[in-house]
Amino acid sequence: MIKIGIVGGTGYTGVELLRLLAQHPQADVRAITSRKDAGTKVADMFASLRRHYDLAFVEPADAALTSCDLVFFATPHGVAMAQARELTAAGVRIIDLAADFRLADPALFERWYKMPHACTDLLAESVYGLPEVNREAIRKARIVGNPGCYPTAVQLGFLPLLEAGLVDTAHLIADCKSGVSGAGRKAELNLILPEASDNFSAYGLKGHRHLPEIVQGLNRASERPVKLAFTPHLVPMIRGIFATLYAPLLRTDVDLQALFEKRYANEPFVDVMPSGSQPDTRSVRASNMLRIAVHRPPDTDLALVAVVEDNLVKGAAGQAIQNMNLMFGLPETTGLTAPPVLP
Amino acid sequence: MIKIGIVGGTGYTGVELLRLLAQHPQADVRAITSRKDAGTKVADMFASLRRHYDLAFVEPADAALTSCDLVFFATPHGVAMAQARELTAAGVRIIDLAADFRLADPALFERWYKMPHACTDLLAESVYGLPEVNREAIRKARIVGNPGCYPTAVQLGFLPLLEAGLVDTAHLIADCKSGVSGAGRKAELNLILPEASDNFSAYGLKGHRHLPEIVQGLNRASERPVKLAFTPHLVPMIRGIFATLYAPLLRTDVDLQALFEKRYANEPFVDVMPSGSQPDTRSVRASNMLRIAVHRPPDTDLALVAVVEDNLVKGAAGQAIQNMNLMFGLPETTGLTAPPVLP
Amino acid sequence: MIKIGIVGGTGYTGVELLRLLAQHPQADVRAITSRKDAGTKVADMFASLRRHYDLAFVEPADAALTSCDLVFFATPHGVAMAQARELTAAGVRIIDLAADFRLADPALFERWYKMPHACTDLLAESVYGLPEVNREAIRKARIVGNPGCYPTAVQLGFLPLLEAGLVDTAHLIADCKSGVSGAGRKAELNLILPEASDNFSAYGLKGHRHLPEIVQGLNRASERPVKLAFTPHLVPMIRGIFATLYAPLLRTDVDLQALFEKRYANEPFVDVMPSGSQPDTRSVRASNMLRIAVHRPPDTDLALVAVVEDNLVKGAAGQAIQNMNLMFGLPETTGLTAPPVLP
Amino acid sequence: MIKIGIVGGTGYTGVELLRLLAQHPQADVRAITSRKDAGTKVADMFASLRRHYDLAFVEPADAALTSCDLVFFATPHGVAMAQARELTAAGVRIIDLAADFRLADPALFERWYKMPHACTDLLAESVYGLPEVNREAIRKARIVGNPGCYPTAVQLGFLPLLEAGLVDTAHLIADCKSGVSGAGRKAELNLILPEASDNFSAYGLKGHRHLPEIVQGLNRASERPVKLAFTPHLVPMIRGIFATLYAPLLRTDVDLQALFEKRYANEPFVDVMPSGSQPDTRSVRASNMLRIAVHRPPDTDLALVAVVEDNLVKGAAGQAIQNMNLMFGLPETTGLTAPPVLP
Repeated sequence: MIKIGIVGGTGYTGVELLRLLAQHPQADVRAITSRKDAGTKVADMFASLRRHYDLAFVEPADAALTSCDLVFFATPHGVAMAQARELTAAGVRIIDLAADFRLADPALFERWYKMPHACTDLLAESVYGLPEVNREAIRKARIVGNPGCYPTAVQLGFLPLLEAGLVDTAHLIADCKSGVSGAGRKAELNLILPEASDNFSAYGLKGHRHLPEIVQGLNRASERPVKLAFTPHLVPMIRGIFATLYAPLLRTDVDLQALFEKRYANEPFVDVMPSGSQPDTRSVRASNMLRIAVHRPPDTDLALVAVVEDNLVKGAAGQAIQNMNLMFGLPETTGLTAPPVLP
Repeated sequence: MIKIGIVGGTGYTGVELLRLLAQHPQADVRAITSRKDAGTKVADMFASLRRHYDLAFVEPADAALTSCDLVFFATPHGVAMAQARELTAAGVRIIDLAADFRLADPALFERWYKMPHACTDLLAESVYGLPEVNREAIRKARIVGNPGCYPTAVQLGFLPLLEAGLVDTAHLIADCKSGVSGAGRKAELNLILPEASDNFSAYGLKGHRHLPEIVQGLNRASERPVKLAFTPHLVPMIRGIFATLYAPLLRTDVDLQALFEKRYANEPFVDVMPSGSQPDTRSVRASNMLRIAVHRPPDTDLALVAVVEDNLVKGAAGQAIQNMNLMFGLPETTGLTAPPVLP
Repeated sequence: MIKIGIVGGTGYTGVELLRLLAQHPQADVRAITSRKDAGTKVADMFASLRRHYDLAFVEPADAALTSCDLVFFATPHGVAMAQARELTAAGVRIIDLAADFRLADPALFERWYKMPHACTDLLAESVYGLPEVNREAIRKARIVGNPGCYPTAVQLGFLPLLEAGLVDTAHLIADCKSGVSGAGRKAELNLILPEASDNFSAYGLKGHRHLPEIVQGLNRASERPVKLAFTPHLVPMIRGIFATLYAPLLRTDVDLQALFEKRYANEPFVDVMPSGSQPDTRSVRASNMLRIAVHRPPDTDLALVAVVEDNLVKGAAGQAIQNMNLMFGLPETTGLTAPPVLP
Repeated sequence: MIKIGIVGGTGYTGVELLRLLAQHPQADVRAITSRKDAGTKVADMFASLRRHYDLAFVEPADAALTSCDLVFFATPHGVAMAQARELTAAGVRIIDLAADFRLADPALFERWYKMPHACTDLLAESVYGLPEVNREAIRKARIVGNPGCYPTAVQLGFLPLLEAGLVDTAHLIADCKSGVSGAGRKAELNLILPEASDNFSAYGLKGHRHLPEIVQGLNRASERPVKLAFTPHLVPMIRGIFATLYAPLLRTDVDLQALFEKRYANEPFVDVMPSGSQPDTRSVRASNMLRIAVHRPPDTDLALVAVVEDNLVKGAAGQAIQNMNLMFGLPETTGLTAPPVLP
């Protein structure tokens, strides 16, 4: 059994970790922290977890995290990097679901997150937790920076095209749509149902924090530098990301379907759908599967890649558990095999 | 492993059976029938089941159902009773998720379902599949009539009051609200999103087929005959039933909270919530749990019981698997332990 | 033209007043106040009002309300009663959309709203603004207490039965369902889309502030004292109230359909639907119409009355304008004739 | 008063015409046809229209359409062109909300709609009903082909860029999102709430019928030929289109905000929002306004234009009435001045 601590368990990534870990045969959740709700039972805040957890939230100081094997940070950015040194020194491994260990360049982190990085040496050794790219490094990592929800979908959608050098990397477009849970469990006016329901909007048009993370990942896969327009939109639904990706093809004689199928042939959580498929987000709801469909819009020289994932699972907590499985030598799919919930 | 056949797998109860059985360690789904879609792979119709089922729908005649241990009928009413004799003769056990084996009185069946009952002898031996009432009989049953979605919620909500003889049984009210999946996977105009979304309506005000089933169950628990107003409403959501039950109390000196807690103390799938709780349907989404909260509306002599369940799980496919577990000597919760999906 | 001021215009009743008054040929909105957003243009906060209002929110002190003919209070309770004396002294008439002038008994107000009433003399002369009951008094009123959303629906649904003395007034039940806008334009966690969407819940089970208001109105219409169970529920939709009302009939030989049709024969905003109708909230969306259907649940001695209204229109801003029309001698339907928005 | 006939009034464009015409001071709806529902009162099918229309649907043959001044066709394609000759011969003017008079090239019509055009001479004289482009021609037209919902949004969003010759016309992208009412009032399985709600999907990826219409309009405005990727998506909401348009800029020294503001300075129904705005569909819900925001995605050479409209109003029935106003010499905004419905 893996002794697990969770820092910051009252947000959606925290409760999703709890939901998924309840089904994981090797997970032993020992402690879950919350400054604001210390003393409250997890199941009193989330009735869905009644009979699954007897645990109460505790103050971070009381959590005995250093006796855990693994600590998940389901916190705002800045928290994991403040605690990483003490935990790693005690032999604890870390998966951060926030942004502290996603951007390799500390200057880029500071520019987008408005705070200096607290442990650039640990940042240097940390691994970006996208198993389809970094599987072997993740196995040995002490610290994993779990990818953002949009970056997971956009990178996995563009990677085969970039790795094969097939597209004009200076004109990439990622038109992305997310369910409202992507904004977090926050009492904000624009998220209440009468504002967000029966409505569709764009946001972050001046620059979204996931942009540098995506570009970093795409640049690693591309010989030529990447320029990307990334447009997030808010969909009146709870879960799900749909990424519509456009890339101008440099050559049009390549079988894109075969390219994608080959790239992801052995991936347990990337499903390249049959040619002509039109994916929908509910086909991955509540599961760690990400599905991809490749198209050629008629009368154009573009590739169109449609990607769907559950932002809270493959886009957050599920991918974190996938990383945990790799780090602890378990089969990669352990605890992540339940089918999506449809309808 | 239990060899399983499913008749009529293209509706919501069918696909929900498939979703839940994929997580069941003893389930071996051998055949799934559909007249209309024979030849289509299950995973081509429901992308959520890709990598979970390689099976295709087959013609009923080709399904070799008589070699199964158990056949689920996820069909309209009338189908199970037509095939029950052949299957039981071959030693196959049956769980019907439609209405053929719910009403003990064939005349009542004929009145509400507009067709004569085809096998009244088998009806007589069949068992009503509400484990909280008929657990021992279900273990031995050859044929189980799986309860309707509303009847499950309404019966479990009223039972403790009726068994204790505490309420005026002539003035019971069940004001019920259901998600749209309760209407089935049907192309009907009133169910399309522009009609059903951002809207709330009542239906079945002249009499709903679940009324006689509920009254039958309540009468079995009550010394005095039951009269019930049952009002179903349609909620703009996918899954979930919320039943608000009202009963005039004959005595007001009884601790209702204790009464309910005692009645369901050992039930794995009935959760009596703490006093004062205000339940919501999402707390049971995609799970087999049913939750109950008991209240006393201020300044009245009424008991108010609020019941939530997922209509497709405890209200249909999950309860069917719970019954299967009982019939085949498995722990009752096998394959049904995943927490609800929240958010 | 009626010179109009609006105090507290940033909530849903405020913006709905603005929407409806933009279509009113006699309305001249002179000032709209907001402490928090003074200086912001109305159309910068609500893009829907671009090209309809050039007005900016102002500090209450700068609003020159005493030069208006009429001031609407679209504020939390407590605000209108604090300003009523000054305004009425200046000859300004008042319609309060909050609770300050709804409960005739100051002690009842204090008990439910946790503050003493500030002007019991003005309360004594104020009129409860339900035109179907108080039309003549409203015409002459200086101060109108505009009814709550639930009370409008529940009172108009029960009134014909009570006025005719047909029902057991000690056992009334109002099972009510409201869209989320009924909770106001507030950043609260339980209202965000990932919490409130695809979900159905009950709330206020220990006592809701609309209960005393409803009971006051029903008692005025009934010879015998009323006891009511009032259960509000939250529906995952933006607008709309559906009230399902139950009353035990003392006599069953009365034509309820005819009774209701006669009672509301001349009402411009109460539509008694044909016998057997099953109403839905979208049939009144964005309009001031309230629709009623009367039923007799099979095998019971109950009357069931289903009532639908738009909580922001007939349940708030529309009824307020209906009252304004009465107070200023205009045809009652002025500015309120646009059909509901369907789909 | 304009004597109006409506052919095919049971779909969403039909009922939206009825809703809007009820508020139009010069509209006299004389007849509304439906083969399937002849004899049914309009208000019995659409309860929202009770007290607004006493009219019943009639057989087309009984509709006396030749005595009307104007006939709207709210039908599938193919119907208007079959009746156009008789009606125009009788002096009746026609607005077709389907596709019969949208594509100037009959061969293109035949290719995309799988039927030959029935009256190419009338097609040649007909006018494409986009007032922002064809205002003067519309005034005099006998037959107006009312634009499709997507084409209205995409054309108005791209036009200023194309007219100014600022963009690479070979690489245009229109990533579009529509509410479900855009699919029509049809009983189709993929549109029912349990399928379409809490879900986001793409469709028409192999080519959508609005593509040739859009390209035709863009080519008229552009010196260089246009190549467009047009990707429609389905949003779990009732009304609204959001078009996210991308165009590579040939020059980056132009003030795009000023360009758009100038182009639409006098348009009553095109609102160029302030620089930096992030529009949402609810800001135009139920109104004829279309809003545009112009952006430059960071670190790219692209223009991004976000366009919102109500697909049933500016995208269908509202624009049709705007055209009617032009054709009959009325102020262009007559009957179309109600603000959007928010929330």
